[in-house]
Amino acid sequence: MRHRLKDVAERAGVSVKTVSNVVNGYLHVRPDTRARVEEAIAELNYRPNLSARNLRKGRTGVIALAVPELDIPYFAELARYVVTAAAEHGWTVLIDQTEGGPEQERKAAAGIGDHMIDGLIFSPLALTADDLSGLDGTPMVLLGERVDHGPADHVVVDNVAAAREITAHLIGLGRRRIAAIGSQRTPEGASARLRLAGYTAALAEAGIEYDEALVAPAPAWHRADGAAAMRELLSSGVRPDAVFCFNDTVALGALRALHEAGLRVPEDVAVAGFDDIEDGRFSIPTLTTVAPDKERIARLAVELLAGRIDGDREAPPRELAAPYRLALRESTTGRP
Amino acid sequence: MRHRLKDVAERAGVSVKTVSNVVNGYLHVRPDTRARVEEAIAELNYRPNLSARNLRKGRTGVIALAVPELDIPYFAELARYVVTAAAEHGWTVLIDQTEGGPEQERKAAAGIGDHMIDGLIFSPLALTADDLSGLDGTPMVLLGERVDHGPADHVVVDNVAAAREITAHLIGLGRRRIAAIGSQRTPEGASARLRLAGYTAALAEAGIEYDEALVAPAPAWHRADGAAAMRELLSSGVRPDAVFCFNDTVALGALRALHEAGLRVPEDVAVAGFDDIEDGRFSIPTLTTVAPDKERIARLAVELLAGRIDGDREAPPRELAAPYRLALRESTTGRP
Repeated sequence: MRHRLKDVAERAGVSVKTVSNVVNGYLHVRPDTRARVEEAIAELNYRPNLSARNLRKGRTGVIALAVPELDIPYFAELARYVVTAAAEHGWTVLIDQTEGGPEQERKAAAGIGDHMIDGLIFSPLALTADDLSGLDGTPMVLLGERVDHGPADHVVVDNVAAAREITAHLIGLGRRRIAAIGSQRTPEGASARLRLAGYTAALAEAGIEYDEALVAPAPAWHRADGAAAMRELLSSGVRPDAVFCFNDTVALGALRALHEAGLRVPEDVAVAGFDDIEDGRFSIPTLTTVAPDKERIARLAVELLAGRIDGDREAPPRELAAPYRLALRESTTGRP
Repeated sequence: MRHRLKDVAERAGVSVKTVSNVVNGYLHVRPDTRARVEEAIAELNYRPNLSARNLRKGRTGVIALAVPELDIPYFAELARYVVTAAAEHGWTVLIDQTEGGPEQERKAAAGIGDHMIDGLIFSPLALTADDLSGLDGTPMVLLGERVDHGPADHVVVDNVAAAREITAHLIGLGRRRIAAIGSQRTPEGASARLRLAGYTAALAEAGIEYDEALVAPAPAWHRADGAAAMRELLSSGVRPDAVFCFNDTVALGALRALHEAGLRVPEDVAVAGFDDIEDGRFSIPTLTTVAPDKERIARLAVELLAGRIDGDREAPPRELAAPYRLALRESTTGRP
């Protein structure tokens, strides 16, 4: 049997209007009410009757998620959460892998085909706030650090604070020669800049002098880049006793290079990453990391987008922060 | 400067018509000629003038790649190759993560929105040949093992032969208690069935008796499933000296469980996977695996699709096989 809005409302003990507000992603619903409604939706497996609604409103029922690359598992994991959150609005999510190229990003921001999508969740690498404010039309929510104070709604994670905390964790273990892998000088390296800022802040707070020789660049944030940078650090003679890698794939590459060099993790070198991808929960050793709440990022992005598509498109842009936590594992603590 | 078809033809030393045949994905071009043209296209960074062509032909310039899940890295890596191969035809690729659900798969096969896409490269889990032949319209190329002798063009890898070879490699190392992880009894588990068949064939050829107690199911093929199955095998007392995992993420989970049990890989238990994902080239130990030629799979799929979109839609379906090789690494040989 197919349930209706009314059934959800009854089960959740709220009005039909409130269920509708949740389904349409309006943000002014109280969190506990929203949770009750979402629970009822899940229990009843309720699906809004969307094709009718879309037709009525001249919509396609399709939104896009545009990310730089899917073989960075962070984006693949985020994609799954976005698909799940969007399904509650009856949206199909198509994923656009832009490779961070300006042409492909511009195409995504312009709605891909000729108004093919109703809205876009967008993690840009190449485009700036200026580029984006020149575009019009497709409702958009931004993710990531590339665009600051941009022309659209934005979901962020406090990268500086998170990087500072994980570096402080390494300092708390008694490490003093803490390397950083993943710095980038390109304009696209916005996350790298913020994570580097958090790293240097933590060193300064602990009274540890910043040593440029301990900071290694990584042109991309893949395993191979992390392994190459770690090898270079080891052969340069700087002798780190810990390393903060700016994402988990870089950290997994660094783990491999340390293993090949015969160094023990964490006894000789403690290793921390950023992203909390699944790989790091099964690697040998398991990986300490910053764990952004990816499910929450996806849900906030979808709700902001729903608010734009169905609501006020002219309201000033909103910026919402998603939480993160530290996941401490074998690569720094020696304990699972 | 923007190059034209003529420039590519001159550089490759072929006719404009031949370049056009390559760009349009016709399959009757000779492989060496195709290679020369593709090289010239790459050197000149040639891009067909597509928006004009699409408008003329009533196209969107967008194709979809529908896969079950992107956090199985095999699909994320394949997606990147498809995006690259499709870019040579000027196509934008949108990726549809179906979760293997019949409703979402049906939506993809029907063209997603209202004829939103020009064509579809589709790796189904739920739909069968019967389901697909009932649909009409969107040109489609199938990947994977779910649909046999289906109603559309198909790119396959010989799973039985590949599984037999990798099992034979384990036997060649002197192992006799070879476990298999990843069997599935569901109709969707077509790859599992073929890989199990290859495993049993290799055992039979070597005169090793098949022992059902050594075959462990895995409901999904994620790291957690591999770890759980490996733990169960170890605690069941069957004492395997090798294990063939039906994909790499399962194998990475198994490596972790063996590590936690204090067993050495490969000395105590040799481990092999299937897919050759990047993770396995950096894991500790690195992972022996079957390496399907993902770039070739993507290129064949895109060329078959181009042939359908621009060519004869009524011609009988074609089936093309992509090659694979064994990648032998530390998890079985002890050597990188």
